[in-house]
Amino acid sequence: MKDPQMIIPRTGIGLDVHAYAAEDSPRPLWLGGLLWPGERGLAGHSDGDPVAHAAADALFSAAGIGDLGTHFGTDRPEFAGASGVTLLAEAARIVRAAGFEIGNVAVQFVANRPKFGPRREESQQVLSDAADAPISVTATTSDRLGFTGRGEGITAVATALVYPRPAGAIG
Amino acid sequence: MKDPQMIIPRTGIGLDVHAYAAEDSPRPLWLGGLLWPGERGLAGHSDGDPVAHAAADALFSAAGIGDLGTHFGTDRPEFAGASGVTLLAEAARIVRAAGFEIGNVAVQFVANRPKFGPRREESQQVLSDAADAPISVTATTSDRLGFTGRGEGITAVATALVYPRPAGAIG
Amino acid sequence: MKDPQMIIPRTGIGLDVHAYAAEDSPRPLWLGGLLWPGERGLAGHSDGDPVAHAAADALFSAAGIGDLGTHFGTDRPEFAGASGVTLLAEAARIVRAAGFEIGNVAVQFVANRPKFGPRREESQQVLSDAADAPISVTATTSDRLGFTGRGEGITAVATALVYPRPAGAIG
Repeated sequence: MKDPQMIIPRTGIGLDVHAYAAEDSPRPLWLGGLLWPGERGLAGHSDGDPVAHAAADALFSAAGIGDLGTHFGTDRPEFAGASGVTLLAEAARIVRAAGFEIGNVAVQFVANRPKFGPRREESQQVLSDAADAPISVTATTSDRLGFTGRGEGITAVATALVYPRPAGAIG
Repeated sequence: MKDPQMIIPRTGIGLDVHAYAAEDSPRPLWLGGLLWPGERGLAGHSDGDPVAHAAADALFSAAGIGDLGTHFGTDRPEFAGASGVTLLAEAARIVRAAGFEIGNVAVQFVANRPKFGPRREESQQVLSDAADAPISVTATTSDRLGFTGRGEGITAVATALVYPRPAGAIG
Repeated sequence: MKDPQMIIPRTGIGLDVHAYAAEDSPRPLWLGGLLWPGERGLAGHSDGDPVAHAAADALFSAAGIGDLGTHFGTDRPEFAGASGVTLLAEAARIVRAAGFEIGNVAVQFVANRPKFGPRREESQQVLSDAADAPISVTATTSDRLGFTGRGEGITAVATALVYPRPAGAIG
């Protein structure tokens, strides 16, 4: 029997993969809410930022209200081509409107480059400001294995923790 | 020093991959607890439903009591060939018998198809009924990269949140 | 409005991939804090234990304080070549020093071998002792797909749950 006073958080998962843009149609790289000058960009609608997209998907997943396709599909043309940061901010708004507080989001991306450490704090600040909640970002490689190891694309995986807004609280 | 009154939830992770069945031995596709007519099926014992299997594995992982192999291995022949939904229901029962309540499970699968949005609610209902707990299901692609991108198989990744049953509560 | 008495845990994610060592420079396999005699070893600095590394990264990710590269990079040469268990113990210490308690860590690895079940309890004990917190370890395969399926390397993915130390508590 559950204690009606107990607030149980919910966990969510989000994975996002983007391929690098073709050599003959170069694009800027947006990753973790930041522009990375001199780095090869990713393909995809919007800015192709897998870190921001995985974070948004993890939030939707935790709230149990669908995914990026549900909320930013063809019936919301105003988000076509929107940046990852814009999508993340809107995802956080939607999750709160559905009755949840956001605990935190943790994202890790898998890529050979760019070197992330020097700009981690900046990335975390941009994403946390967008979601108005703590978002941590970490980086790793796949040790030269698989499509991330061959430099064909970047994978990001995120978990999110949300919890139902306490009764009587004002969102 | 931990507050003895404080209930600390536990997180778990579950990943499951199934290859598509060979062309010359076609099988129906079961995914997210649903049958998908006209879609190419997956190989594997039972119905090969990676969403249900990842959810079950995440529950075991959160409870710290092993995995699918531990509980549905060769010493429990009655589960040979059981559906993913049956395994998930049994996993939830085992986790509760081990002294945990289930907060929620969130699963995302990676595949080029089927188009999941129109049947998400139906899938979530079937899985949530099986586990008697909220299970969210989301979908994405790997942008044509890797084995999911080449249409060789489907990956599902899940997180689960469980918590020890409060003292004095009746399971 | 958040209840100031409410303790909200934080979730984290950690993924780690290591390639097998080249045939002509064999190494022992360390996985889940255990030595596996007769198994082909992994490449990498330290012992290349992806389970221990993913667990450590998930802890850092949950606490929002960077990743393995941040804490065990070139400016801490005393950890060059350290075992995964040593890194995990130090990660847990750093996370606690940053003001968090550790709820649990759950790790799953993806590999064709070794057969993990018979040594799961032993592995969990070694890792839990190192972190002084419950660490569960589970195993799966990728059904012969991708680089784990081809036996090129091992992937481990972990989630961790931490929470801010209650006010007045002594770490």
